[in-house]
Amino acid sequence: MEFSSKLLERAVNEMSQLPGIGKRTALRLVLHLLRQPKEQTTALAEALQTMRLDVKFCKSCHNISDVELCEICSNPNRNAEVICVVEDIRDVMAIENTSSFKGVYHVLGGKISPMDGIGPHDLNIETLVNKVKQGTTKELIFALSSTMEGDTTNFYIYKQIQDYDVVTSTIARGISVGDELEYADEITLGRSIVNRVPFEASLKS
Amino acid sequence: MEFSSKLLERAVNEMSQLPGIGKRTALRLVLHLLRQPKEQTTALAEALQTMRLDVKFCKSCHNISDVELCEICSNPNRNAEVICVVEDIRDVMAIENTSSFKGVYHVLGGKISPMDGIGPHDLNIETLVNKVKQGTTKELIFALSSTMEGDTTNFYIYKQIQDYDVVTSTIARGISVGDELEYADEITLGRSIVNRVPFEASLKS
Repeated sequence: MEFSSKLLERAVNEMSQLPGIGKRTALRLVLHLLRQPKEQTTALAEALQTMRLDVKFCKSCHNISDVELCEICSNPNRNAEVICVVEDIRDVMAIENTSSFKGVYHVLGGKISPMDGIGPHDLNIETLVNKVKQGTTKELIFALSSTMEGDTTNFYIYKQIQDYDVVTSTIARGISVGDELEYADEITLGRSIVNRVPFEASLKS
Repeated sequence: MEFSSKLLERAVNEMSQLPGIGKRTALRLVLHLLRQPKEQTTALAEALQTMRLDVKFCKSCHNISDVELCEICSNPNRNAEVICVVEDIRDVMAIENTSSFKGVYHVLGGKISPMDGIGPHDLNIETLVNKVKQGTTKELIFALSSTMEGDTTNFYIYKQIQDYDVVTSTIARGISVGDELEYADEITLGRSIVNRVPFEASLKS
Protein backbone atom coordinates (compact mmCIF):
# COMPACT_ATOMS: atom_id res chain seq x y z
CA MET A 1 0.00 0.00 0.00
CA GLU A 2 1.48 3.35 -1.03
CA PHE A 3 0.57 6.40 0.99
CA SER A 4 0.67 9.99 -0.14
CA SER A 5 1.57 11.14 3.38
CA LYS A 6 4.15 9.86 5.87
CA LEU A 7 1.99 10.99 8.79
CA LEU A 8 -0.92 8.97 7.48
CA GLU A 9 1.32 5.98 6.86
CA ARG A 10 2.69 6.07 10.40
CA ALA A 11 -0.80 6.29 11.92
CA VAL A 12 -2.01 3.37 9.79
CA ASN A 13 1.07 1.30 10.68
CA GLU A 14 0.65 1.88 14.41
CA MET A 15 -3.07 1.14 14.23
CA SER A 16 -2.50 -2.11 12.35
CA GLN A 17 -0.29 -3.38 15.21
CA LEU A 18 -3.49 -4.04 17.13
CA PRO A 19 -4.74 -7.64 16.99
CA GLY A 20 -7.34 -8.32 14.30
CA ILE A 21 -6.77 -4.95 12.58
CA GLY A 22 -5.13 -5.15 9.17
CA LYS A 23 -3.81 -2.35 7.01
CA ARG A 24 -7.12 -1.79 5.23
CA THR A 25 -9.17 -1.62 8.42
CA ALA A 26 -6.54 0.66 9.97
CA LEU A 27 -6.79 3.01 6.98
CA ARG A 28 -10.58 3.04 7.25
CA LEU A 29 -10.39 3.91 10.97
CA VAL A 30 -7.76 6.61 10.46
CA LEU A 31 -9.71 8.23 7.60
CA HIS A 32 -12.78 8.17 9.84
CA LEU A 33 -10.82 10.09 12.50
CA LEU A 34 -9.79 12.62 9.83
CA ARG A 35 -13.45 13.32 9.04
CA GLN A 36 -14.31 13.83 12.73
CA PRO A 37 -13.48 16.92 14.81
CA LYS A 38 -9.88 17.07 16.04
CA GLU A 39 -11.10 16.78 19.62
CA GLN A 40 -12.15 13.17 19.08
CA THR A 41 -8.65 12.07 18.10
CA THR A 42 -7.15 14.04 20.96
CA ALA A 43 -9.56 12.41 23.41
CA LEU A 44 -8.79 8.94 22.07
CA ALA A 45 -5.02 9.45 22.13
CA GLU A 46 -5.12 10.92 25.61
CA ALA A 47 -7.44 8.23 27.01
CA LEU A 48 -5.18 5.46 25.69
CA GLN A 49 -2.04 7.05 27.00
CA THR A 50 -3.23 7.96 30.50
CA MET A 51 -4.80 4.51 30.76
CA ARG A 52 -1.54 2.80 29.84
CA LEU A 53 0.64 4.98 32.05
CA ASP A 54 -1.56 5.48 35.10
CA VAL A 55 -3.56 2.28 35.40
CA LYS A 56 -2.96 0.36 38.63
CA PHE A 57 -3.38 -3.27 39.49
CA CYS A 58 -4.97 -4.19 42.83
CA LYS A 59 -2.14 -5.25 45.17
CA SER A 60 -4.22 -8.14 46.47
CA CYS A 61 -6.03 -9.66 43.45
CA HIS A 62 -4.14 -8.02 40.51
CA ASN A 63 -7.40 -6.84 38.95
CA ILE A 64 -7.24 -3.52 37.09
CA SER A 65 -8.11 -0.71 39.49
CA ASP A 66 -7.70 3.03 40.00
CA VAL A 67 -6.77 2.60 43.66
CA GLU A 68 -4.32 0.37 45.52
CA LEU A 69 -6.95 -2.10 46.70
CA CYS A 70 -9.77 -2.72 44.21
CA GLU A 71 -13.45 -2.26 45.03
CA ILE A 72 -14.09 -5.98 45.31
CA CYS A 73 -11.15 -6.67 47.67
CA SER A 74 -11.99 -3.65 49.86
CA ASN A 75 -15.73 -4.48 50.08
CA PRO A 76 -16.45 -5.81 53.61
CA ASN A 77 -19.53 -7.68 52.33
CA ARG A 78 -17.43 -9.99 50.15
CA ASN A 79 -16.16 -13.23 51.62
CA ALA A 80 -12.35 -13.00 51.42
CA GLU A 81 -12.04 -16.67 52.44
CA VAL A 82 -13.25 -17.88 49.04
CA ILE A 83 -10.95 -16.98 46.13
CA CYS A 84 -11.93 -17.47 42.50
CA VAL A 85 -8.82 -17.91 40.34
CA VAL A 86 -9.27 -16.43 36.83
CA GLU A 87 -7.12 -15.77 33.82
CA ASP A 88 -7.78 -12.11 33.14
CA ILE A 89 -9.96 -9.16 34.00
CA ARG A 90 -12.57 -10.03 31.36
CA ASP A 91 -13.34 -13.19 33.34
CA VAL A 92 -13.85 -11.10 36.48
CA MET A 93 -16.32 -8.91 34.55
CA ALA A 94 -18.14 -11.99 33.20
CA ILE A 95 -18.48 -13.61 36.64
CA GLU A 96 -19.49 -10.32 38.29
CA ASN A 97 -22.27 -10.00 35.71
CA THR A 98 -23.80 -13.27 36.93
CA SER A 99 -24.13 -11.90 40.52
CA SER A 100 -23.61 -15.53 41.64
CA PHE A 101 -20.29 -15.10 43.41
CA LYS A 102 -19.77 -13.29 46.70
CA GLY A 103 -16.10 -14.14 47.29
CA VAL A 104 -13.01 -12.38 45.92
CA TYR A 105 -10.86 -12.96 42.85
CA HIS A 106 -7.26 -13.62 41.97
CA VAL A 107 -6.27 -12.60 38.43
CA LEU A 108 -3.34 -14.68 37.13
CA GLY A 109 -2.77 -12.57 34.03
CA GLY A 110 -2.66 -15.58 31.69
CA LYS A 111 -2.17 -19.32 31.60
CA ILE A 112 1.00 -21.40 31.71
CA SER A 113 1.81 -21.93 28.03
CA PRO A 114 5.34 -23.08 27.13
CA MET A 115 4.45 -22.76 23.44
CA ASP A 116 4.00 -19.00 23.89
CA GLY A 117 6.94 -18.74 26.28
CA ILE A 118 4.73 -18.13 29.33
CA GLY A 119 5.99 -19.92 32.42
CA PRO A 120 4.65 -19.91 36.01
CA HIS A 121 6.89 -16.98 36.94
CA ASP A 122 5.28 -14.75 34.34
CA LEU A 123 1.95 -15.12 36.15
CA ASN A 124 0.67 -13.92 39.54
CA ILE A 125 0.90 -17.38 41.08
CA GLU A 126 3.32 -16.69 43.93
CA THR A 127 1.06 -14.12 45.58
CA LEU A 128 -1.83 -16.59 45.40
CA VAL A 129 0.22 -19.34 47.07
CA ASN A 130 1.30 -16.85 49.75
CA LYS A 131 -2.34 -16.02 50.49
CA VAL A 132 -3.05 -19.73 51.00
CA LYS A 133 0.06 -20.15 53.20
CA GLN A 134 -1.17 -17.39 55.49
CA GLY A 135 -4.10 -19.68 56.31
CA THR A 136 -6.98 -17.23 55.88
CA THR A 137 -8.21 -18.87 52.68
CA LYS A 138 -10.84 -21.63 52.96
CA GLU A 139 -11.56 -22.38 49.30
CA LEU A 140 -9.93 -21.84 45.90
CA ILE A 141 -12.25 -22.02 42.87
CA PHE A 142 -10.35 -22.60 39.63
CA ALA A 143 -12.25 -20.79 36.85
CA LEU A 144 -9.71 -21.07 34.01
CA SER A 145 -10.73 -22.05 30.52
CA SER A 146 -10.94 -25.78 29.93
CA THR A 147 -7.89 -26.15 27.68
CA MET A 148 -4.57 -27.92 27.99
CA GLU A 149 -2.99 -24.69 29.24
CA GLY A 150 -5.81 -24.04 31.71
CA ASP A 151 -5.57 -27.58 33.12
CA THR A 152 -1.77 -27.29 33.40
CA THR A 153 -2.09 -24.04 35.32
CA ASN A 154 -4.73 -25.51 37.65
CA PHE A 155 -2.50 -28.50 38.34
CA TYR A 156 0.62 -26.38 38.92
CA ILE A 157 -1.18 -24.26 41.51
CA TYR A 158 -2.78 -27.34 43.09
CA LYS A 159 0.65 -28.98 43.57
CA GLN A 160 1.92 -25.95 45.46
CA ILE A 161 -0.97 -25.71 47.89
CA GLN A 162 -2.06 -29.32 48.37
CA ASP A 163 -0.35 -29.61 51.78
CA TYR A 164 -2.27 -26.66 53.18
CA ASP A 165 -5.72 -26.75 54.70
CA VAL A 166 -7.71 -25.39 51.75
CA VAL A 167 -10.58 -26.78 49.69
CA THR A 168 -10.07 -26.63 45.90
CA SER A 169 -12.77 -26.82 43.26
CA THR A 170 -13.23 -26.11 39.58
CA ILE A 171 -16.31 -24.56 38.03
CA ALA A 172 -18.75 -27.15 36.64
CA ARG A 173 -18.41 -28.18 33.00
CA GLY A 174 -21.54 -29.42 31.28
CA ILE A 175 -24.36 -28.72 28.89
CA SER A 176 -25.28 -25.03 28.68
CA VAL A 177 -28.66 -24.05 30.08
CA GLY A 178 -31.12 -24.08 27.17
CA ASP A 179 -28.89 -26.26 24.93
CA GLU A 180 -30.12 -29.36 23.09
CA LEU A 181 -28.32 -32.59 24.08
CA GLU A 182 -27.95 -33.82 20.50
CA TYR A 183 -25.79 -30.85 19.47
CA ALA A 184 -23.42 -30.97 22.47
CA ASP A 185 -19.89 -32.27 21.90
CA GLU A 186 -19.14 -35.71 23.33
CA ILE A 187 -16.51 -34.63 25.87
CA THR A 188 -18.78 -32.04 27.45
CA LEU A 189 -21.75 -34.43 27.46
CA GLY A 190 -19.58 -37.21 28.91
CA ARG A 191 -18.32 -34.95 31.69
CA SER A 192 -21.78 -33.73 32.51
CA ILE A 193 -22.94 -37.34 33.00
CA VAL A 194 -19.95 -38.28 35.18
CA ASN A 195 -20.33 -35.11 37.27
CA ARG A 196 -24.12 -35.36 37.64
CA VAL A 197 -25.69 -33.58 40.61
CA PRO A 198 -28.51 -34.84 42.87
CA PHE A 199 -31.88 -33.77 41.46
CA GLU A 200 -32.84 -32.02 44.72
CA ALA A 201 -29.68 -29.90 44.47
CA SER A 202 -30.51 -28.89 40.90
CA LEU A 203 -33.95 -27.67 42.02
CA LYS A 204 -32.37 -25.13 44.35
CA SER A 205 -30.08 -23.45 41.85
CA MET B 1 -20.47 -3.58 31.02
CA GLU B 2 -19.07 -2.64 34.45
CA PHE B 3 -15.43 -1.64 34.69
CA SER B 4 -13.25 -1.80 37.77
CA SER B 5 -11.29 1.26 36.58
CA LYS B 6 -12.44 4.61 35.26
CA LEU B 7 -9.26 4.95 33.16
CA LEU B 8 -9.98 1.64 31.49
CA GLU B 9 -13.61 2.56 30.97
CA ARG B 10 -12.68 5.87 29.32
CA ALA B 11 -10.17 4.19 26.99
CA VAL B 12 -12.73 1.55 25.99
CA ASN B 13 -15.42 4.20 25.43
CA GLU B 14 -13.17 6.31 23.20
CA MET B 15 -12.01 3.25 21.27
CA SER B 16 -15.57 2.07 20.67
CA GLN B 17 -16.39 5.39 18.96
CA LEU B 18 -14.51 4.07 15.93
CA PRO B 19 -16.73 2.56 13.21
CA GLY B 20 -17.14 -1.22 13.43
CA ILE B 21 -15.58 -1.42 16.89
CA GLY B 22 -17.98 -2.33 19.66
CA LYS B 23 -17.41 -2.33 23.41
CA ARG B 24 -16.14 -5.91 23.50
CA THR B 25 -13.64 -5.45 20.68
CA ALA B 26 -12.51 -2.17 22.23
CA LEU B 27 -11.90 -3.93 25.55
CA ARG B 28 -9.91 -6.65 23.79
CA LEU B 29 -7.75 -4.06 22.01
CA VAL B 30 -7.17 -2.01 25.16
CA LEU B 31 -6.23 -5.10 27.21
CA HIS B 32 -3.82 -6.03 24.42
CA LEU B 33 -2.16 -2.61 24.76
CA LEU B 34 -1.88 -3.17 28.52
CA ARG B 35 0.08 -6.36 27.91
CA GLN B 36 2.48 -4.65 25.49
CA PRO B 37 5.32 -2.28 26.45
CA LYS B 38 4.22 1.25 27.30
CA GLU B 39 6.12 2.56 24.27
CA GLN B 40 3.63 0.95 21.89
CA THR B 41 0.68 2.85 23.32
CA THR B 42 2.69 6.08 23.35
CA ALA B 43 3.66 5.56 19.71
CA LEU B 44 0.05 4.85 18.70
CA ALA B 45 -1.35 7.83 20.60
CA GLU B 46 1.30 10.15 19.25
CA ALA B 47 0.97 8.92 15.65
CA LEU B 48 -2.80 9.44 15.71
CA GLN B 49 -2.55 12.87 17.22
CA THR B 50 0.22 14.29 15.02
CA MET B 51 -1.55 12.81 11.99
CA ARG B 52 -4.82 14.50 12.92
CA LEU B 53 -3.28 17.84 13.81
CA ASP B 54 -0.53 18.16 11.19
CA VAL B 55 -1.91 16.41 8.13
CA LYS B 56 -2.30 18.68 5.11
CA PHE B 57 -4.53 18.44 2.09
CA CYS B 58 -3.09 19.22 -1.35
CA LYS B 59 -4.29 22.71 -2.31
CA SER B 60 -4.96 21.56 -5.85
CA CYS B 61 -6.53 18.08 -5.63
CA HIS B 62 -7.39 17.87 -1.87
CA ASN B 63 -5.57 14.55 -1.54
CA ILE B 64 -3.85 13.92 1.82
CA SER B 65 -0.28 15.14 1.64
CA ASP B 66 2.60 16.27 3.83
CA VAL B 67 3.36 19.25 1.59
CA GLU B 68 1.25 22.02 0.04
CA LEU B 69 1.11 20.43 -3.41
CA CYS B 70 0.93 16.64 -3.42
CA GLU B 71 3.42 14.40 -5.26
CA ILE B 72 0.97 13.61 -8.04
CA CYS B 73 0.03 17.25 -8.74
CA SER B 74 3.67 18.38 -8.63
CA ASN B 75 4.89 15.58 -10.92
CA PRO B 76 5.69 17.10 -14.37
CA ASN B 77 5.20 13.69 -16.04
CA ARG B 78 1.50 13.60 -15.15
CA ASN B 79 -1.01 15.06 -17.55
CA ALA B 80 -2.73 17.87 -15.66
CA GLU B 81 -5.28 18.27 -18.44
CA VAL B 82 -7.07 15.04 -17.51
CA ILE B 83 -8.70 15.06 -14.07
CA CYS B 84 -10.12 11.94 -12.43
CA VAL B 85 -12.85 12.89 -9.95
CA VAL B 86 -12.96 10.52 -6.96
CA GLU B 87 -14.73 10.32 -3.65
CA ASP B 88 -11.85 9.87 -1.21
CA ILE B 89 -8.16 9.15 -0.88
CA ARG B 90 -8.69 5.37 -0.85
CA ASP B 91 -9.94 5.63 -4.43
CA VAL B 92 -6.77 7.50 -5.40
CA MET B 93 -4.70 4.69 -3.87
CA ALA B 94 -6.77 2.04 -5.67
CA ILE B 95 -6.42 3.75 -9.08
CA GLU B 96 -2.70 4.46 -8.54
CA ASN B 97 -2.20 0.74 -7.86
CA THR B 98 -3.49 -0.08 -11.35
CA SER B 99 -0.77 2.11 -12.99
CA SER B 100 -3.35 2.75 -15.74
CA PHE B 101 -3.87 6.45 -15.18
CA LYS B 102 -1.37 9.17 -15.97
CA GLY B 103 -3.53 12.22 -15.30
CA VAL B 104 -4.23 13.97 -11.98
CA TYR B 105 -6.99 13.57 -9.41
CA HIS B 106 -9.59 15.67 -7.67
CA VAL B 107 -10.76 14.33 -4.30
CA LEU B 108 -14.32 15.46 -3.49
CA GLY B 109 -14.27 14.19 0.09
CA GLY B 110 -17.61 12.40 -0.20
CA LYS B 111 -20.78 12.25 -2.26
CA ILE B 112 -23.87 14.46 -2.22
CA SER B 113 -26.20 12.67 0.16
CA PRO B 114 -29.16 14.62 1.57
CA MET B 115 -30.03 11.63 3.79
CA ASP B 116 -26.72 12.07 5.64
CA GLY B 117 -26.95 15.86 5.51
CA ILE B 118 -24.14 16.21 2.96
CA GLY B 119 -24.81 18.91 0.38
CA PRO B 120 -22.67 20.16 -2.54
CA HIS B 121 -21.09 22.82 -0.33
CA ASP B 122 -19.66 20.23 2.06
CA LEU B 123 -17.61 18.79 -0.80
CA ASN B 124 -14.66 20.14 -2.82
CA ILE B 125 -16.81 20.83 -5.88
CA GLU B 126 -16.25 24.59 -6.23
CA THR B 127 -12.49 24.25 -6.69
CA LEU B 128 -13.09 21.61 -9.38
CA VAL B 129 -15.49 23.86 -11.26
CA ASN B 130 -12.99 26.73 -11.00
CA LYS B 131 -10.29 24.53 -12.55
CA VAL B 132 -12.59 23.83 -15.51
CA LYS B 133 -13.49 27.52 -15.84
CA GLN B 134 -9.81 28.41 -16.14
CA GLY B 135 -9.83 26.39 -19.36
CA THR B 136 -6.73 24.24 -18.81
CA THR B 137 -8.75 21.05 -18.30
CA LYS B 138 -9.49 18.87 -21.34
CA GLU B 139 -11.26 15.89 -19.75
CA LEU B 140 -13.04 15.05 -16.50
CA ILE B 141 -13.34 11.35 -15.66
CA PHE B 142 -16.04 10.67 -13.08
CA ALA B 143 -14.91 7.70 -10.97
CA LEU B 144 -17.49 7.80 -8.18
CA SER B 145 -19.23 4.69 -6.95
CA SER B 146 -22.24 3.66 -8.97
CA THR B 147 -24.93 4.50 -6.43
CA MET B 148 -27.77 6.99 -6.30
CA GLU B 149 -25.50 9.42 -4.40
CA GLY B 150 -22.62 8.93 -6.84
CA ASP B 151 -24.87 9.53 -9.86
CA THR B 152 -26.36 12.63 -8.21
CA THR B 153 -22.90 14.03 -7.57
CA ASN B 154 -21.79 13.32 -11.15
CA PHE B 155 -24.89 15.06 -12.50
CA TYR B 156 -24.53 18.07 -10.18
CA ILE B 157 -20.94 18.63 -11.34
CA TYR B 158 -21.88 18.03 -14.99
CA LYS B 159 -24.60 20.71 -14.79
CA GLN B 160 -22.06 23.29 -13.59
CA ILE B 161 -19.49 22.66 -16.29
CA GLN B 162 -21.57 21.66 -19.31
CA ASP B 163 -21.20 25.08 -20.95
CA TYR B 164 -17.42 24.90 -20.87
CA ASP B 165 -15.19 23.21 -23.42
CA VAL B 166 -14.40 20.00 -21.53
CA VAL B 167 -14.98 16.32 -22.31
CA THR B 168 -16.68 14.33 -19.55
CA SER B 169 -16.64 10.54 -19.14
CA THR B 170 -17.40 7.97 -16.48
CA ILE B 171 -15.37 4.85 -15.83
CA ALA B 172 -16.80 1.76 -17.59
CA ARG B 173 -19.23 -0.43 -15.66
CA GLY B 174 -19.43 -4.06 -16.64
CA ILE B 175 -18.56 -7.63 -15.85
CA SER B 176 -15.33 -7.98 -13.82
CA VAL B 177 -12.38 -9.57 -15.61
CA GLY B 178 -12.48 -13.30 -14.79
CA ASP B 179 -16.14 -13.28 -13.66
CA GLU B 180 -18.72 -15.77 -14.91
CA LEU B 181 -21.67 -14.19 -16.77
CA GLU B 182 -24.30 -16.33 -15.04
CA TYR B 183 -23.45 -14.93 -11.59
CA ALA B 184 -23.38 -11.25 -12.62
CA ASP B 185 -26.29 -9.06 -11.51
CA GLU B 186 -28.73 -8.03 -14.22
CA ILE B 187 -28.09 -4.29 -14.10
CA THR B 188 -24.34 -4.69 -14.54
CA LEU B 189 -24.78 -7.26 -17.30
CA GLY B 190 -27.36 -5.05 -19.01
CA ARG B 191 -25.06 -2.04 -18.89
CA SER B 192 -22.12 -4.02 -20.19
CA ILE B 193 -24.17 -5.05 -23.24
CA VAL B 194 -25.40 -1.52 -23.92
CA ASN B 195 -21.89 -0.09 -23.53
CA ARG B 196 -20.16 -2.79 -25.57
CA VAL B 197 -16.79 -1.87 -27.09
CA PRO B 198 -15.46 -2.75 -30.60
CA PHE B 199 -13.63 -6.08 -30.48
CA GLU B 200 -10.48 -4.55 -31.90
CA ALA B 201 -10.41 -2.00 -29.07
CA SER B 202 -10.74 -4.76 -26.47
CA LEU B 203 -7.69 -6.51 -27.93
CA LYS B 204 -5.51 -3.50 -27.14
CA SER B 205 -6.35 -3.13 -23.43
